[in-house]
Amino acid sequence: MFESAELGHAIDKKTFKAEVQKLREALLEAQFELRERGGFQVLILVSGVDGAGKGETINELYGWMDPRYLSTPAFAAPTDEEAAHPFMWRFWQVLPPKGRIGIFSGSWYSMPIRRRIEGEIDQALFDQRIDLINRFEAMLANEGALILKFWFHLTKEGQKKRFKALEKDPRTAWRVTKASWESLKTHDRLQEVASHLLRLTNTPWAPWSVVESADDRYRSLTVGKMILDALQKRLASPQEREYPVAPPISPRTDALDVLTTLDLEQKLERGAYQLRLAQAQGKLAELVRTPEFKKRSLILVFEGADAAGKGGSIRRLVAALDARQYQIVPIAAPTQEELAQPYLWRFWRHMPKVGRITIFDRSWYGRVLVERVEGFCSEADWLRAYSEINDFEHELRADGAIILKFWLQISGEEQLQRFKERENTAFKRYKITDEDWRNREKWDAYHQAVCDMVERTSTGLIPWTLVEANDKNFARVKVLETVCERLAEALKAKG
Amino acid sequence: MFESAELGHAIDKKTFKAEVQKLREALLEAQFELRERGGFQVLILVSGVDGAGKGETINELYGWMDPRYLSTPAFAAPTDEEAAHPFMWRFWQVLPPKGRIGIFSGSWYSMPIRRRIEGEIDQALFDQRIDLINRFEAMLANEGALILKFWFHLTKEGQKKRFKALEKDPRTAWRVTKASWESLKTHDRLQEVASHLLRLTNTPWAPWSVVESADDRYRSLTVGKMILDALQKRLASPQEREYPVAPPISPRTDALDVLTTLDLEQKLERGAYQLRLAQAQGKLAELVRTPEFKKRSLILVFEGADAAGKGGSIRRLVAALDARQYQIVPIAAPTQEELAQPYLWRFWRHMPKVGRITIFDRSWYGRVLVERVEGFCSEADWLRAYSEINDFEHELRADGAIILKFWLQISGEEQLQRFKERENTAFKRYKITDEDWRNREKWDAYHQAVCDMVERTSTGLIPWTLVEANDKNFARVKVLETVCERLAEALKAKG
Repeated sequence: MFESAELGHAIDKKTFKAEVQKLREALLEAQFELRERGGFQVLILVSGVDGAGKGETINELYGWMDPRYLSTPAFAAPTDEEAAHPFMWRFWQVLPPKGRIGIFSGSWYSMPIRRRIEGEIDQALFDQRIDLINRFEAMLANEGALILKFWFHLTKEGQKKRFKALEKDPRTAWRVTKASWESLKTHDRLQEVASHLLRLTNTPWAPWSVVESADDRYRSLTVGKMILDALQKRLASPQEREYPVAPPISPRTDALDVLTTLDLEQKLERGAYQLRLAQAQGKLAELVRTPEFKKRSLILVFEGADAAGKGGSIRRLVAALDARQYQIVPIAAPTQEELAQPYLWRFWRHMPKVGRITIFDRSWYGRVLVERVEGFCSEADWLRAYSEINDFEHELRADGAIILKFWLQISGEEQLQRFKERENTAFKRYKITDEDWRNREKWDAYHQAVCDMVERTSTGLIPWTLVEANDKNFARVKVLETVCERLAEALKAKG
Repeated sequence: MFESAELGHAIDKKTFKAEVQKLREALLEAQFELRERGGFQVLILVSGVDGAGKGETINELYGWMDPRYLSTPAFAAPTDEEAAHPFMWRFWQVLPPKGRIGIFSGSWYSMPIRRRIEGEIDQALFDQRIDLINRFEAMLANEGALILKFWFHLTKEGQKKRFKALEKDPRTAWRVTKASWESLKTHDRLQEVASHLLRLTNTPWAPWSVVESADDRYRSLTVGKMILDALQKRLASPQEREYPVAPPISPRTDALDVLTTLDLEQKLERGAYQLRLAQAQGKLAELVRTPEFKKRSLILVFEGADAAGKGGSIRRLVAALDARQYQIVPIAAPTQEELAQPYLWRFWRHMPKVGRITIFDRSWYGRVLVERVEGFCSEADWLRAYSEINDFEHELRADGAIILKFWLQISGEEQLQRFKERENTAFKRYKITDEDWRNREKWDAYHQAVCDMVERTSTGLIPWTLVEANDKNFARVKVLETVCERLAEALKAKG
């Protein structure tokens, strides 16, 4: 894997200067076009051997392009804020928006490599992390991102030489620290780990380029040219988004499905309702104040047809909570800033820290519900979303989040009656809009979408709870009691 | 001040229930209207004596309104992220956007009160903080925010009673901690500090309401009604934004001003340029790597006419820096999310942490330049902006930020020549747009705006540096040398 990066590439000063002149103009043009069209995000990952000149090349790129539209997030040891969120959170926070270029010096590769070299994780855990990375990058690529990954290679001898040269020059001596010399000792181990990693993450949608790094000019020029080439190609022919996806879910052959088998007529009388509601609220209030919960977080997802009673259930639920501990996020049309990012970005923004609760009134499932039914995204887009969403939720869960998902199901007749009632009640009038009436006409399409969603995203660890919601009392108590039960289980399991 | 909140107000259960029913419907309506119109931000501050029922009333409000459009940020001890930013940063991060309501339990009042009670700050520092708060709230109010401040009052005896009652009920016992009983000891001191604070922050644009808090029903109902009343009034008659502002700056009576007296023809020959540029870059690279700088941050502001050479100066400057240490923020039209906030909000988002650098290519001065000249805001708006901007910069500075502001001045002839040159150079073509030509026609209006800006915002601690920029070499070196000089001074002064 590294052989072609040990050939002794070097470029003389004159050639370099001439090439850079052309390169710079072309890069500026490409960067301008990218920005004007705002079509896609560009992620440039710069990894490799210590002392191989990652910082130097990045700074060179800043000189060649318009630095106002570049960003280079710095990742040091995680801050409290970062430590209180899942590992990938920090990267989601700094993704460049569409039309911009982000150059990542530390990236999602740094931590797994370091931990594997130091023996903190075994091969299986390492491979698991690699798998997650591949899925993450595939999602980005499918969302239109252009991902360029560079691995800067030096032989051990080459590394030693570079450190010595850097140390000799007073302008660069600061770059060589004790840690640099230490890294020489693990050079062989790094090669081993890296060659495994590079092989497995060399995906068609985000391949690595190994760059021989002994010569500053060769290294930077090579990287610059590859970036230019990739930008020009993508600008000239917008990505063909014809990735393979599973065929649509098989059509219903009879009337049986997870929704039609629900007994929507289940009821709860007022007395029983008030008692059980109060008990569950009391239980919930206790659970979220246990020391165990301080180390976890709770994510509640509410989906359901219009007027299914999501709002009412949420209100009964939060009545048990302290306003300072939770946040309700109603999901409406995405903002400009959110549209410039992969669709999951706007949910990452709201993920709770440990000890806190976020309640989503509608959620990322919009991708496979409203966006599918209304044709806001292509079939391929929503078909891939099932596994992207599963990955996303399992990433959160692996970090300790407890995720509960509720689908509130009502019958068509019940919905009609509630719409009418709302129109007649002054302070509920605002709840009903023309759009609600339009959505009703697509009842069957939504029905199918919900069945498919449940089939594909109700996983063993993060199942859907289907709530029979024709009777509001029954639905509210079922939601609250389910939250208590699942939360108690989860806190016990880990505590 | 507290007399009228010691009368023994109480409301019986039946009255409460009937009143709440009406109140709730009206609040939901008002909240809906607020959201639909998206017209203004609502900030509800809840402060007061420990155990007075702040949490209870906030939770009650969540039950009465639509909780999906409320937010209640929790402020615990500052996180690393917060500690690495100025004090007000955390509040800017959680301002509700226009059309939403934010309920602040901890607010900008909590810390000064606590520190004053504990004697960590003296009266003068306390008053200084109060003054800053008044200015901050005035700015918010002028930006259209509705600010409601509630002070929950209890006598010492009342406080003791409440703690005992809370402790007796198992559902509320957790609310009473050792700190609660301790707070009894400082009750008198709190009254003293609060009565001073309330008097000075009882501004016409953000007055306090002192609420007798012994009775839960009275307290919550009173607050709910006051919120409703304030919302309805504001919705019915949009704020008259006729606050008093200073008269416009006096017209020029002769041709002398800070711009016309600049000698734009100053030049730097190529040899001297290269030498001094390299020296200054070396010096800058050293300065930002000193241990002193790790405790400070650097904010650079670049303003200037189109084609004045801002981009070129920035590029020469960042050539001395490591890409991981700085961020360049080009300011263009605000996004949707930014428009839903006071105009300074979008700059707070980008403020550097300690040890880091943010370079603004155009800045908050757009308010008094382009927005003034193009009429994007009213005269009253840009006239008040001078002191708001001064407050903003001094807040940052008080926290240790080093702020340098550059105005790059070129002559009209020079600009024309550069425009033409750009149109003829392939890779600079993108730099020139129709808007640039249009802006040129407003040359005189911009000239006046710049003079006024310098007059009003070039303060002793944060002066403008006017840069004669007809010669690019001269301008770039002046910028870089000024940065070095001012940075060295600042680091010495504090170190």
